[in-house]
Amino acid sequence: MDFSSKYLEKAVLEISGLPGIGRKTALRLALHLLRCDENEVEALAGSLMDLKQKVKRCSSCGNLSDRERCEICENPVREQALVCVVEDIRDVMAIENTGQYKGVYQVLGALISPMDGIGPGGLNLQSLLDKVEEGKVQEVIFALSGTMEGETTGFYIYKKLKDKGLKLSSIARGIAVGDQLEYADELTLARSIQHRLPYEQSLQQNRS
Amino acid sequence: MDFSSKYLEKAVLEISGLPGIGRKTALRLALHLLRCDENEVEALAGSLMDLKQKVKRCSSCGNLSDRERCEICENPVREQALVCVVEDIRDVMAIENTGQYKGVYQVLGALISPMDGIGPGGLNLQSLLDKVEEGKVQEVIFALSGTMEGETTGFYIYKKLKDKGLKLSSIARGIAVGDQLEYADELTLARSIQHRLPYEQSLQQNRS
Repeated sequence: MDFSSKYLEKAVLEISGLPGIGRKTALRLALHLLRCDENEVEALAGSLMDLKQKVKRCSSCGNLSDRERCEICENPVREQALVCVVEDIRDVMAIENTGQYKGVYQVLGALISPMDGIGPGGLNLQSLLDKVEEGKVQEVIFALSGTMEGETTGFYIYKKLKDKGLKLSSIARGIAVGDQLEYADELTLARSIQHRLPYEQSLQQNRS
Repeated sequence: MDFSSKYLEKAVLEISGLPGIGRKTALRLALHLLRCDENEVEALAGSLMDLKQKVKRCSSCGNLSDRERCEICENPVREQALVCVVEDIRDVMAIENTGQYKGVYQVLGALISPMDGIGPGGLNLQSLLDKVEEGKVQEVIFALSGTMEGETTGFYIYKKLKDKGLKLSSIARGIAVGDQLEYADELTLARSIQHRLPYEQSLQQNRS
């Protein structure tokens, strides 16, 4: 592609550096911005800089926050002794949206993935280990992806915590509510059968 | 979606205002930017502001340019008397990429589209009409989309120019090179037959 303006070329190059955005989409977005008002573009550019300069990681759990500690860790109603381990803040948002969880989180920020060069040192785990040492934690729930990386990371943390006298649990894996059995993959179905519940208990869950 | 940071929320809102980008993609992009170095985000934000503040429209043809007149209009080798009318700069880039066109352009910036509230006044056409009045133009080639809007716009401009003693032409519509006949739509195939060429001329084109 030959550009008639080097500023346009620079903008397309920068935009197409974002994940999942190719040159054609980048050009379409750049032409859209050229048609926008200057203050709209300013608002976009400013929000990107604010994002980078003002958003911090919560010192307690690693969640994104505008302050030293995030709203969830600061909330006196949340059970500080119940910690849910998740990969990233999108998982926090998904669990918060259910409205069913009253504990706090530990946001790892990554999963152990030798292929991507991420080892145990790449996890935001120390603040959880410190809290455990200080006796502030009673139960840790693992809510990691059902992938190889998620299972590896879960097992690594499990080994670190298993002798600390905590209750350790993992979110249930099984057939999604509303899913048809015939379309479920075999592993999920097998786990679903393996971790079956007393029928009365499953009724209770459906009702709540 | 509940965000733990209002700067993140603002950034996601701004990014999802771009065409074709939803909230989930916007969040993914925002989280990517948070992982980037600050100077990378600065380069992106800066290039967006430069785009808006420094890119001009060429006073002669409407193409995007960093200067008063674009490189194509300034190029002494290009035939100023041959003007190709296109909708937007992506069309200029597509035609330039063929390396076959030696004239200049008129970039309309839009097509007449009553549905979108764009009338003839929304077209960047005056500079072409002025050039025609000054006797600087010999031939105008219409290279507009084969849509209703493209045909309407072409016909509007044709009516303005038809009594000025110019050669007026339209790019050929037909079966694409390499396309199979059976998959072509009927309108295209019909036009292809209607505007058939002497066989020797088509051979010449394939050879060049």
